[in-house]
Amino acid sequence: MKKLVNDPSDYVDEMLEGMVAAYPDRVRRLDGTKVLVRSDAPVDGKVGVVSGGGSGHEPTHAGYIGDGMLDGAAAGEVFTSPTADELNEMVRACDAGEGVLCVVKNYEGDVMNFDTAAEMAEMEDVEVAQVVVNDDVAVEDSLYTSGRRGVCGTILVHKAVGAKAADGGSLEEVQAVGEKVIDNVRTMGMALTSCITPEKGEETFDLGEDEIELGIGIHGEPGTERTEMMTADEVAEHLTENVLADLDPDDGDDVVSIVNGMGGTPLSELFIVNRKVQEILDDRGLETWDAWVGDYMTSLDMMGCSVTVCRVDDELKELLGAAVDTPALKR
Amino acid sequence: MKKLVNDPSDYVDEMLEGMVAAYPDRVRRLDGTKVLVRSDAPVDGKVGVVSGGGSGHEPTHAGYIGDGMLDGAAAGEVFTSPTADELNEMVRACDAGEGVLCVVKNYEGDVMNFDTAAEMAEMEDVEVAQVVVNDDVAVEDSLYTSGRRGVCGTILVHKAVGAKAADGGSLEEVQAVGEKVIDNVRTMGMALTSCITPEKGEETFDLGEDEIELGIGIHGEPGTERTEMMTADEVAEHLTENVLADLDPDDGDDVVSIVNGMGGTPLSELFIVNRKVQEILDDRGLETWDAWVGDYMTSLDMMGCSVTVCRVDDELKELLGAAVDTPALKR
Repeated sequence: MKKLVNDPSDYVDEMLEGMVAAYPDRVRRLDGTKVLVRSDAPVDGKVGVVSGGGSGHEPTHAGYIGDGMLDGAAAGEVFTSPTADELNEMVRACDAGEGVLCVVKNYEGDVMNFDTAAEMAEMEDVEVAQVVVNDDVAVEDSLYTSGRRGVCGTILVHKAVGAKAADGGSLEEVQAVGEKVIDNVRTMGMALTSCITPEKGEETFDLGEDEIELGIGIHGEPGTERTEMMTADEVAEHLTENVLADLDPDDGDDVVSIVNGMGGTPLSELFIVNRKVQEILDDRGLETWDAWVGDYMTSLDMMGCSVTVCRVDDELKELLGAAVDTPALKR
Repeated sequence: MKKLVNDPSDYVDEMLEGMVAAYPDRVRRLDGTKVLVRSDAPVDGKVGVVSGGGSGHEPTHAGYIGDGMLDGAAAGEVFTSPTADELNEMVRACDAGEGVLCVVKNYEGDVMNFDTAAEMAEMEDVEVAQVVVNDDVAVEDSLYTSGRRGVCGTILVHKAVGAKAADGGSLEEVQAVGEKVIDNVRTMGMALTSCITPEKGEETFDLGEDEIELGIGIHGEPGTERTEMMTADEVAEHLTENVLADLDPDDGDDVVSIVNGMGGTPLSELFIVNRKVQEILDDRGLETWDAWVGDYMTSLDMMGCSVTVCRVDDELKELLGAAVDTPALKR
């Protein structure tokens, strides 16, 4: 196994230690947990915004902790939900009395544990609301998921709800913004190679030398089809067309696009994909208000990418464009 | 070959088109070249700061174009120097009458072509100065290089000279800041896997399943030794100790550290390496003033990392901490 790792069972623990060592003024770890929170959490007068999920998707979620985005992020083991107890601790640590919004990716374990955590926190008089992100258009119901999976669109939810909370929005208003992004964001991904989890040390699924998988999930869950190697333009076209078919935008709509790397694909290739994505959006009469290109929601060392399109109105532009100061996203 | 690519001979061209499509308000391409410059270049009253080199190291260099960093970046073909003609065009496009500093990584082709470009620009009355970055402590003289190679420390040079130029520094002052960073920065890298260039489509060098290469260059140039797989802590220790032995800092010195990914290694692993790097710096009585963790100077899809340490005084802290607004680095 070709990884920069010590004992694989310490992978998440040591990754979190490395994050705190990198950003000691920004984040702190809740004792005895895999939860990171803003060093100044809870932030007075502000709704708390938290997320979490299995590790292996870095910089998701802890990389987005900071002003204008997340107050806390709970890490599970690789591709495994955080426990309800740890989620509850996070929610309580991020509550300044204004309530806490949980941004949940739609996986059964995450949904169940966030639900339980919310019940636990509410028993201690913390007001909790939730949004569940399900932006992946590839498949309905999958390994780990009823309904659609939550993938890279989650980052736009983090950004918008974080900005609304920073702007003094109430819990209800912050939640409404999250729902609005979810209603308007769609994603589809593909893999050139399988990821390799540190514990297992070998490929999660087999792909032939000339084979790729379309519609793949961020844990290597099956996609829509295996096919022969495609060009970057063909990949961009397949993903973008599927996303747009589902989103069904109107001519002249403003959108934010994301070409997201899966972890093992270099940035140069993502720009080659973005070239075609922008051409397609333009041909469809859509206006790209902002284009993101980079590794936002990864799957360990998997090679591949996803394409996200989010329709934005003036409110979402203001929130997505607002100042943010986190390790992984600044503006 | 598992890459998101169309015709491999269009790799750099299409990557640049994809960058311009992502950041149309930030960068523009000089017609008929592989040069990107700030959309508002030349910037009145400011020394121009430019860099360039072979492609395959993204986000280096064009990702660092923007306020407080680079005015222009010339891309060569993959791992190949830009031509002197294109470098000359870039220098002229970024000169507002205050002169232009060229930040050159120490590779023979780059040095030669930047020298020729400077002569050409000077004949047209553009004042040109140069700094040559040679931060790689691994080897003296290598494939493509006399002396030491220029690697990830280059990004700190970009940042400091860009800030000095934005602050109204003269060409001589901006150059002096570049020399100061170069005097104080050291790097060493390693590879878990070879990179694969799009034109060749196969591994540049062979590494066995349980083998890694220490001291590798960013084009796969030979390093100091091949060895059996090491743990993340052992890798961190080997690289950091070599860097510190060469830099020879004093107890209590302030430093900036970079754990840089080579392109194919996920961020989670870089944090695991950073954990140990910070422990070593701390044990050595050094104060980490700022820790960078991410992909700054890559080698296509190579798995591996490098460790950079830069000693910083008050002047460098101010410059490295100054506001910057580029696609790849913001603060």
